[in-house]
Amino acid sequence: MSGPTLKEAQALIEAAQQRAFDLGKAVSVAVVDYGGYVVAVSRMDGARPMTPSIAISKAYSAAVMQRPTAMLKAWSNGDPVFFSQVARMGHQPIVATLGGYTLKRGDEILGGVGIAGGSAEEDEAIAKGVVEAAGWSTEFPAWAGARKEPNGNG
Amino acid sequence: MSGPTLKEAQALIEAAQQRAFDLGKAVSVAVVDYGGYVVAVSRMDGARPMTPSIAISKAYSAAVMQRPTAMLKAWSNGDPVFFSQVARMGHQPIVATLGGYTLKRGDEILGGVGIAGGSAEEDEAIAKGVVEAAGWSTEFPAWAGARKEPNGNG
Amino acid sequence: MSGPTLKEAQALIEAAQQRAFDLGKAVSVAVVDYGGYVVAVSRMDGARPMTPSIAISKAYSAAVMQRPTAMLKAWSNGDPVFFSQVARMGHQPIVATLGGYTLKRGDEILGGVGIAGGSAEEDEAIAKGVVEAAGWSTEFPAWAGARKEPNGNG
Amino acid sequence: MSGPTLKEAQALIEAAQQRAFDLGKAVSVAVVDYGGYVVAVSRMDGARPMTPSIAISKAYSAAVMQRPTAMLKAWSNGDPVFFSQVARMGHQPIVATLGGYTLKRGDEILGGVGIAGGSAEEDEAIAKGVVEAAGWSTEFPAWAGARKEPNGNG
Repeated sequence: MSGPTLKEAQALIEAAQQRAFDLGKAVSVAVVDYGGYVVAVSRMDGARPMTPSIAISKAYSAAVMQRPTAMLKAWSNGDPVFFSQVARMGHQPIVATLGGYTLKRGDEILGGVGIAGGSAEEDEAIAKGVVEAAGWSTEFPAWAGARKEPNGNG
Repeated sequence: MSGPTLKEAQALIEAAQQRAFDLGKAVSVAVVDYGGYVVAVSRMDGARPMTPSIAISKAYSAAVMQRPTAMLKAWSNGDPVFFSQVARMGHQPIVATLGGYTLKRGDEILGGVGIAGGSAEEDEAIAKGVVEAAGWSTEFPAWAGARKEPNGNG
Repeated sequence: MSGPTLKEAQALIEAAQQRAFDLGKAVSVAVVDYGGYVVAVSRMDGARPMTPSIAISKAYSAAVMQRPTAMLKAWSNGDPVFFSQVARMGHQPIVATLGGYTLKRGDEILGGVGIAGGSAEEDEAIAKGVVEAAGWSTEFPAWAGARKEPNGNG
Repeated sequence: MSGPTLKEAQALIEAAQQRAFDLGKAVSVAVVDYGGYVVAVSRMDGARPMTPSIAISKAYSAAVMQRPTAMLKAWSNGDPVFFSQVARMGHQPIVATLGGYTLKRGDEILGGVGIAGGSAEEDEAIAKGVVEAAGWSTEFPAWAGARKEPNGNG
């Protein structure tokens, strides 16, 4: 399995929509697989037209960079030209902002979830909240660690 | 209201997934609003990674061209260079293929639905089937300019 | 695991290079993961500068379309304008040609391998040969079938 | 000969992977020829999906700009608009960051190597370390135009 099932994606979306509703906000939620390909996207009535695209880019970034999008901010701030170039290397923009979380189970990266439509802090709180509540890992090293043996010799 | 509600979009998606299941296929379904912006996208387990993008482009095309994507084929075949130019003018590719239907109520265009993952004929049958079953109009003039009365008066 | 290990990728590359050597050709070989991201690429001395890019696009296409690239030819020939549009939706070009094979184990898609540098038939023979010899599945339905239950309800 | 041999490229890759392993990091390594075309790319198990693309862009930049990527930072910082324009003129992005080294023997430029996946400083240390250890030159004038004698006569 190289991504969340549709059932898992729908559960994340419904949980995020409930949290947004409780905040009085209309958001878009996107869930993507390991490779950053869409599993499901949903825009609540009243959310702005661009929010699904923003949510997809957040979910994509968290999936292919394999850490929450908030962790990309130091890189983006510290080396903005290089970050901007890397940000165009995939099939969606890679964004360094709040509101995108990696879907990780143990050491396995299965995808990402992105929220757009609230304030940055609200998007982040919703994303982190639903990922934690659904039992996905929320611990990420600053950089990906190596497997036990180099070069696949082990 | 310039688009289907999320509830209407979800009903279309679930109806399409049921029809795909009955055909033994895994498809992606996309629903967009009047402006071609995503309302909801859903990829069934087993559908290929590119199918959500293809489904979005079909739904987009049906919404902004305001007719089913199959009706664009004569134009694409008859004037392929110009069609290819127009096809790149929006924020998604405009595709002339089977499987995209406009969501129209009376003379009002509210969006589009796109199916990808089955054969072209299966995608078309699913798209047309769910749109008809949900009570959306499926009558379209060949070209907007060909309508008997301008400005939607007819 | 959402892709072949580097060790598996290297074994495919070395096997392909041996077959190319036996044919007296210099080829490039690319192996990508489920999402079409590079695992390893290798260009034999004497292979032309563009062959690594061509090999990557073949491997990418086989991975994300989830079937050998040769199976895309009917689609490309039958609906070239639409195929060309879909071919630009990912982060590499999707190519309908000989020489790209999907890496599939049971029902699980793990990636793709692409060969470029020989004749089209030689590239295909090498790709198919090394995939079969390494025990990957080489049976592909014309279109992806559905899982047992729609909509992730099961 | 306008590039490293595949054997030389593989030796650089294996040396870089050993150094990354010793640091506890999983990296991607790319080696390109004089024209910036890929010779070999290898992603260690656990390295993120975008790292091969980043490594290729570093190796490309070092090859076609004919100096280590770190030496491009002064230009990028001093004239960011022009640098950004030049950075898009080739077939890969030209990046001004740590981790890319030119492969130079005497006055002959044979290619570049790029590392991605560690911290910027780790990528740089690996790149410089393997290039030096393999006996490639690591002396570069600040600008090609600053060389004492034009046309490589010096």
